[in-house]
Amino acid sequence: MKYGFSERVKYLKSSAVRDILKVINQGNIISFAGGLPEEKLFPVEAVDQAFHKAITTNPKTLQYGETEGVPALRKAIAERMKQKGLDRPIEDILITSGSQQAIDLFSNVMFNQGDVILTENPTYLAALQVFETYETDVVPVDADEDGMVIADLEEKIQRLRPKCIYVVPTYSNPTGKVWSLKRRKQLLALAQKYHVVIFEDDPYGELQFDQEGAPPSIASMDDQDLVLYTSTFSKTVVPAVRMGWIVGPHQIIRIMAQAKQATDLHTNSISQHAFVHLLEDFDLEAHIQLIRDTYYQRMLVMKRLLDEVDMEGLTYIEPKGGMFFWVTLPEEINTTQLLDKAVEAGVAFVPGAPFYVNHPKQNTLRLNFTNATPDVIEEGMRKFVQVLEDYKVHA
Amino acid sequence: MKYGFSERVKYLKSSAVRDILKVINQGNIISFAGGLPEEKLFPVEAVDQAFHKAITTNPKTLQYGETEGVPALRKAIAERMKQKGLDRPIEDILITSGSQQAIDLFSNVMFNQGDVILTENPTYLAALQVFETYETDVVPVDADEDGMVIADLEEKIQRLRPKCIYVVPTYSNPTGKVWSLKRRKQLLALAQKYHVVIFEDDPYGELQFDQEGAPPSIASMDDQDLVLYTSTFSKTVVPAVRMGWIVGPHQIIRIMAQAKQATDLHTNSISQHAFVHLLEDFDLEAHIQLIRDTYYQRMLVMKRLLDEVDMEGLTYIEPKGGMFFWVTLPEEINTTQLLDKAVEAGVAFVPGAPFYVNHPKQNTLRLNFTNATPDVIEEGMRKFVQVLEDYKVHA
Repeated sequence: MKYGFSERVKYLKSSAVRDILKVINQGNIISFAGGLPEEKLFPVEAVDQAFHKAITTNPKTLQYGETEGVPALRKAIAERMKQKGLDRPIEDILITSGSQQAIDLFSNVMFNQGDVILTENPTYLAALQVFETYETDVVPVDADEDGMVIADLEEKIQRLRPKCIYVVPTYSNPTGKVWSLKRRKQLLALAQKYHVVIFEDDPYGELQFDQEGAPPSIASMDDQDLVLYTSTFSKTVVPAVRMGWIVGPHQIIRIMAQAKQATDLHTNSISQHAFVHLLEDFDLEAHIQLIRDTYYQRMLVMKRLLDEVDMEGLTYIEPKGGMFFWVTLPEEINTTQLLDKAVEAGVAFVPGAPFYVNHPKQNTLRLNFTNATPDVIEEGMRKFVQVLEDYKVHA
Repeated sequence: MKYGFSERVKYLKSSAVRDILKVINQGNIISFAGGLPEEKLFPVEAVDQAFHKAITTNPKTLQYGETEGVPALRKAIAERMKQKGLDRPIEDILITSGSQQAIDLFSNVMFNQGDVILTENPTYLAALQVFETYETDVVPVDADEDGMVIADLEEKIQRLRPKCIYVVPTYSNPTGKVWSLKRRKQLLALAQKYHVVIFEDDPYGELQFDQEGAPPSIASMDDQDLVLYTSTFSKTVVPAVRMGWIVGPHQIIRIMAQAKQATDLHTNSISQHAFVHLLEDFDLEAHIQLIRDTYYQRMLVMKRLLDEVDMEGLTYIEPKGGMFFWVTLPEEINTTQLLDKAVEAGVAFVPGAPFYVNHPKQNTLRLNFTNATPDVIEEGMRKFVQVLEDYKVHA
């Protein structure tokens, strides 16, 4: 049977990472491929109690809710954001089904076919996926270790008149990089000069490994209503609840809420009420510190094993937070081909190519260090190192 | 500050009903306006236990999940559907964040600008909203008490080559109508003859008031993979969880899952696991019978009061299930204007106009009978009758 699909479906493809994960999850393979938080750290008891309270305190909690989100949750998030320097009234906050939905709703209300979006390269691939489905023109900006290269950014803003600059400036997926304060300010200044909206995607910002943490969010420095900021509880509490939020200019948030109404009426409100209780009753800051410490130790184990690899041309970015190592291998190694060997050897990673807007560097890969214990990381990395050694011999 | 929004936002508007509800909820008004189930019937204890099990049994429940939905829930839904004559493998089922998301995802993968969708008129207004945002051309088909008029349907299929026929054939919102078996078969035969996809929206199908219930779903009679069927637990369990599903041709479901992946990764999976437990541990059939009995009694109260109105030209459809009375007043009465008087008098309804594709009948209105106790219905209807009487006198 043939169906007449929309033109849009041309741009839909299953996420490369999720497809890899499906294969990997079937075998007995140590996986550094996913972007999964550690299940053992999930605050099960606190989540359980929060849901129990949410469900039993008031039957209205189980009724249809407001599209914008449960007011008490928006208030609690506004307070958390304010502590991080981002001071916005609750009218400027929309609760979303994960920050993925924030990216989609924003794209829905902002982009026409052919609109230009400037991004880092590589960048979060599921954002690229969304941008593609809206038939936008995604253009990468040169970057160094501190963030986008400002000269290239300004040249592209002037020439291409972008609708939006999409950035993951803090412990980014996939590269683990952190933008410097100076570069954040320069980006904001350019956005203000040319009146371009910035979309700041920050799922990992709280997962810092050092005392001082990352520089302030770009949104927190915005005094001209040009930055939208999205984050999520997926990495700090649990992913299954799909609990994200977006904060920004009221005009845009309001229209995104209208789009959300047509899309799914509102985000699961039992979960929203549960998060109200969780944020009241549970010491989330202490919990986040536990996550940071655990992930930091795991990162160090992976780093130690990476340092043992005797391979000229292998470089990596040491993450100051977040969940990933971004590894560059000698140019002659294609990591998509390498993955087959790795899976044979019982270990998996994600090839870097799908994270690129264009001209993918085929010799890059992403390693996740948050979903395996130090022992398993050690075991998996020994396999990975062996695969690299073998590849070298046969090449 | 001016922002460059997408062309799409032109078609976005806040739901008229939700806007009315916001005003009404602020005052001390008896509301027959919403489409809310009765909170007192929510199976709080069962929901509480189901979530407790889902959260505490296995931490993997709290991890990221599959876009298509939790397999055990899809299996449980497949079994429920099969008992109702709709036999589909779990691969043909997608879990959605409410059936609203099923309508949106379907529209996303099917419709290009200008595609024709045939609908009843009036019909579910939030579906009309979605269809508008995809810039489709929605064309109403004539209907009588048994469903669409087949001659008009065939003429429009031949002339307009629609991409889809959208129907709410069972205890519809807003009219409360039920399509006859014959008309269902005729619709399906025409869809097959001209190869048009049917979207069968069935949120109310289980809320029957008589022993025999409604005729089988159109999807259950489809042997040519042309019908998509969506339903939800919003009306039979609780709405807050946003737990819907869609079942249909695998090709379409698969592409909808890809669209969902970009949209929100997956539906809240704590809730999905909770529903697996709920469907195992809780006597949902007995619970649904309780809902039916309660709503039937309330419907009878409202009917009795409607029958007391002494107004020539007032007619209504007696619902055989569902949640609504659809009332037609004498042609000279504009129900949008009448609503102001009603709210002044302390009672609210929804004017019929927003449910129409075009040429709204301004003398229609929808009354919900499920969210108020018989006493309150009686009190509210007495106010409503008084408003009608006064209007007559002043007109």
